Amino acid sequence: MKEKEFLDELAEITLLNQTLALLDWDSQTGMPETAATERGAASGYLSGLAFEKQTGPKIKAALDYFNDHQAELSEVGKTVFQVAKKDYDEIHAIPKELMVERSRLYSQAHTAWVKARKSQNFADFKPALEENIRITKELIPYYKKDEATDYDVLLNLFEPGMTTAVLDEVFTELRDGLVKIRQLIAQEGIEPDTSFKDRIMTKEQQKVFVENLVSQLGFDFNRGRLDDTVHPFATRLARNDVRITTRWNEQDFSMGIFGVIHEAGHGIYEQNMAEKYNMTPVYDAPSMGIHESQSLFYEIILGSKRSFWQKQYPIFQAAAEGTFDDIDFETFYRSLKATAASLIRIEADSLTYPLHIIIRYELEKALFNGDLTAAELPKAWNDKYEEYLGIRPDNDLVGVLQDVHWSGGMFGYFPSYALGYMYAAQLLHAMEKELAVDDLLTRGDYAPIKAWLTEHIHQFGRSKTPSELIKAATKETLNPQYLLDYLSELYQTVYQIKA
Amino acid sequence: MKEKEFLDELAEITLLNQTLALLDWDSQTGMPETAATERGAASGYLSGLAFEKQTGPKIKAALDYFNDHQAELSEVGKTVFQVAKKDYDEIHAIPKELMVERSRLYSQAHTAWVKARKSQNFADFKPALEENIRITKELIPYYKKDEATDYDVLLNLFEPGMTTAVLDEVFTELRDGLVKIRQLIAQEGIEPDTSFKDRIMTKEQQKVFVENLVSQLGFDFNRGRLDDTVHPFATRLARNDVRITTRWNEQDFSMGIFGVIHEAGHGIYEQNMAEKYNMTPVYDAPSMGIHESQSLFYEIILGSKRSFWQKQYPIFQAAAEGTFDDIDFETFYRSLKATAASLIRIEADSLTYPLHIIIRYELEKALFNGDLTAAELPKAWNDKYEEYLGIRPDNDLVGVLQDVHWSGGMFGYFPSYALGYMYAAQLLHAMEKELAVDDLLTRGDYAPIKAWLTEHIHQFGRSKTPSELIKAATKETLNPQYLLDYLSELYQTVYQIKA
Repeated sequence: MKEKEFLDELAEITLLNQTLALLDWDSQTGMPETAATERGAASGYLSGLAFEKQTGPKIKAALDYFNDHQAELSEVGKTVFQVAKKDYDEIHAIPKELMVERSRLYSQAHTAWVKARKSQNFADFKPALEENIRITKELIPYYKKDEATDYDVLLNLFEPGMTTAVLDEVFTELRDGLVKIRQLIAQEGIEPDTSFKDRIMTKEQQKVFVENLVSQLGFDFNRGRLDDTVHPFATRLARNDVRITTRWNEQDFSMGIFGVIHEAGHGIYEQNMAEKYNMTPVYDAPSMGIHESQSLFYEIILGSKRSFWQKQYPIFQAAAEGTFDDIDFETFYRSLKATAASLIRIEADSLTYPLHIIIRYELEKALFNGDLTAAELPKAWNDKYEEYLGIRPDNDLVGVLQDVHWSGGMFGYFPSYALGYMYAAQLLHAMEKELAVDDLLTRGDYAPIKAWLTEHIHQFGRSKTPSELIKAATKETLNPQYLLDYLSELYQTVYQIKA
Repeated sequence: MKEKEFLDELAEITLLNQTLALLDWDSQTGMPETAATERGAASGYLSGLAFEKQTGPKIKAALDYFNDHQAELSEVGKTVFQVAKKDYDEIHAIPKELMVERSRLYSQAHTAWVKARKSQNFADFKPALEENIRITKELIPYYKKDEATDYDVLLNLFEPGMTTAVLDEVFTELRDGLVKIRQLIAQEGIEPDTSFKDRIMTKEQQKVFVENLVSQLGFDFNRGRLDDTVHPFATRLARNDVRITTRWNEQDFSMGIFGVIHEAGHGIYEQNMAEKYNMTPVYDAPSMGIHESQSLFYEIILGSKRSFWQKQYPIFQAAAEGTFDDIDFETFYRSLKATAASLIRIEADSLTYPLHIIIRYELEKALFNGDLTAAELPKAWNDKYEEYLGIRPDNDLVGVLQDVHWSGGMFGYFPSYALGYMYAAQLLHAMEKELAVDDLLTRGDYAPIKAWLTEHIHQFGRSKTPSELIKAATKETLNPQYLLDYLSELYQTVYQIKA
């Protein structure tokens, strides 16, 4: 067995995955809807081929051989071996019958979820949700290594190394901090004027502005592109072909503009992993939380900064061709960061968003640690919204039925979103020790910022775990205080609260 | 062996081919150029998988079994068997070493062709062309069945059943007839006014007009789409996902508009083969000549008709938002069909285009029947252009080096283009016996025309040979007189020649 054979096999798997990514991108951008069934068949067939190779005899032989002959591997080869072995073990953990049953249940649950949303009645989803929870509980022992609780096993599948012990602590701190900021705003804040935010800015005007902006931020349009879609996403078809997508709302420029900045953050990450890992499973993010830290760094961290908009607002005004010429900078800037409790996670603002995640985390944990049944879920959901956000859903559609995740058995995934927020703020704090970030933003000199992120995050791909990355980049472990400090200062300014 | 197993295997091959079609479509529309190498690797890898399956043990076992058990096949199964067997035999004919050598030579020849075009010197291409001719001559015996000459074997690969005996006769008749029409025009014709044809019509204006037009003609945008590209083409990703592409020239509306009509003709064909053949190799055109007959029927046959433009010109004028309001219908219509000799095939008008093809046919036939060497080709090329079109290339770039085909070993392919012209005119003649085509066009009632083509051509896919299709649809074999009659009448009108 030669390293080259091993890498060639992994490269073929990568080619299949690139093709699957194109099939998916196309189905979400340009494909006629009527072609959905055949496209599903093509994706299904290729997924099967990829799975066969990932679990096939060539990979097994290579992993067995290099397990005993590490010295024959190059440095890159050693890293690739570790990651490929992890993937192989994970994909092999589950007996095939359970995999098939799981797929069947998820598919049924998705149908039930769609039905329940129509009827606005959780009861139509409950039996399927219970089945999803049951099968997930049956699967946990196969994945379990030394995790403290069942829910820790689920967390680990999405954010390797993360534990409920850590999350309980940081989420409590975060939740209390956010609630405190919200109280302060309610008591002393002056509401920003947002009356002009629905002025028409055409898709073309928005596009000119934001394409130019994200290009300056570091998204390379020679190695990627931007398209329209319904549910925005970023995807890597190849190292030199990273595609971001967005939806536009001409009566709410912030949807398209911040949406593109967010996806460009993902895209910049995908475009800047070290080339030496290309065509291997190392060329990927180590977790969804880390990936989200990069999109949120651009969208929420840089995109909330006064210094950022000081540079960009005149350019934005020019792109809008006069529409906002009567709005002064201060008014415009404050309007971007207005906050209010809302029932729907994906419509939440940057202050309240983490609370939506914490609610889901607490409920999931209770479901898997035996403290909550599916039947009790709607009431528990509504109670938590009332407690943390001060609003209560009228019906399940705007409550417990709003997210697709549980119908697909994605328990343990939600925390990644909040981790991304905290990582992003912690990275800014570390970056500011080395770079005068506000000066750079005021000047529109974005290259050093991207270079810092590439040096500390992008380049490594999956060669480091999330916690290794954050530790190395920020010299400490996950610390929610940076996000709280950031949001606290931001919202005190925007809501003109005296310190 | 069950029919279902056989069809399932063919369906998987179809899914791979659909995916390959998407990879190619994407690389010609949206893919960043920098991703070309990895995309090539992905296409190459999937092509290999498709080839392995097409020549694999499952297909062989099925063909062997059903060869002896025809009675166990359904009607559709029998047709699929015939077509699959033909493909298998053809793909198996060539020893693997020769396949590999051929690929290598084609690749080298393409590089040499690109170089020769830069240097405008045929000498830089000659050695590679000689090698391509040599390997093709070596391959011919493997394909040869009962064809009369070597060149007949090549013709058959692209237009099954076509012979030099037939082509010699129809091309002589066609060439003489076209030359006669051109002489008449030169002697008595009144040149149309084309001075306004370079007026700016924006891409958006053209697009609104032509999307609406081809949609009425029968291209179903719910099962297809239109995109921009450099080299226009039509491709079927799936029965419900047929994509056409075009390039636009704001100073020459006819490029984009007739280009889209042409590709829509291909697209309508692909969208209307019988559903029972879907996911089998029967769901395809039986030849490139038949495919081209459908695109040319819309572009050249309908698109040249006075009745067609009588309906469409006011709509065109409205789409152009005033740009052509001072041009009366007669002037506009005549301008569309101006003709002049030109050196470049793909820029030729509908009267002179077939002459470009006939020149290539005569040269190819001479090359393969031993009457011409590669060294003699440039002079022979230039002489024929002088003889048939009255113009002589200044250099090889606008002469023998203009087409990519021979660098890829595609000898015997060119005649398909002219066959498409003749088939299209012959189909119109047959259609007019049943439908009042000009009346329908004047009213903009296009559905009966599409229905006739679907009934006589589209639905059959590869279940009939080209000659069977033409015979059944028109009650006679290929007859060039219909094209000559059509063009003669058309150009006499346009050039205002008294009968």
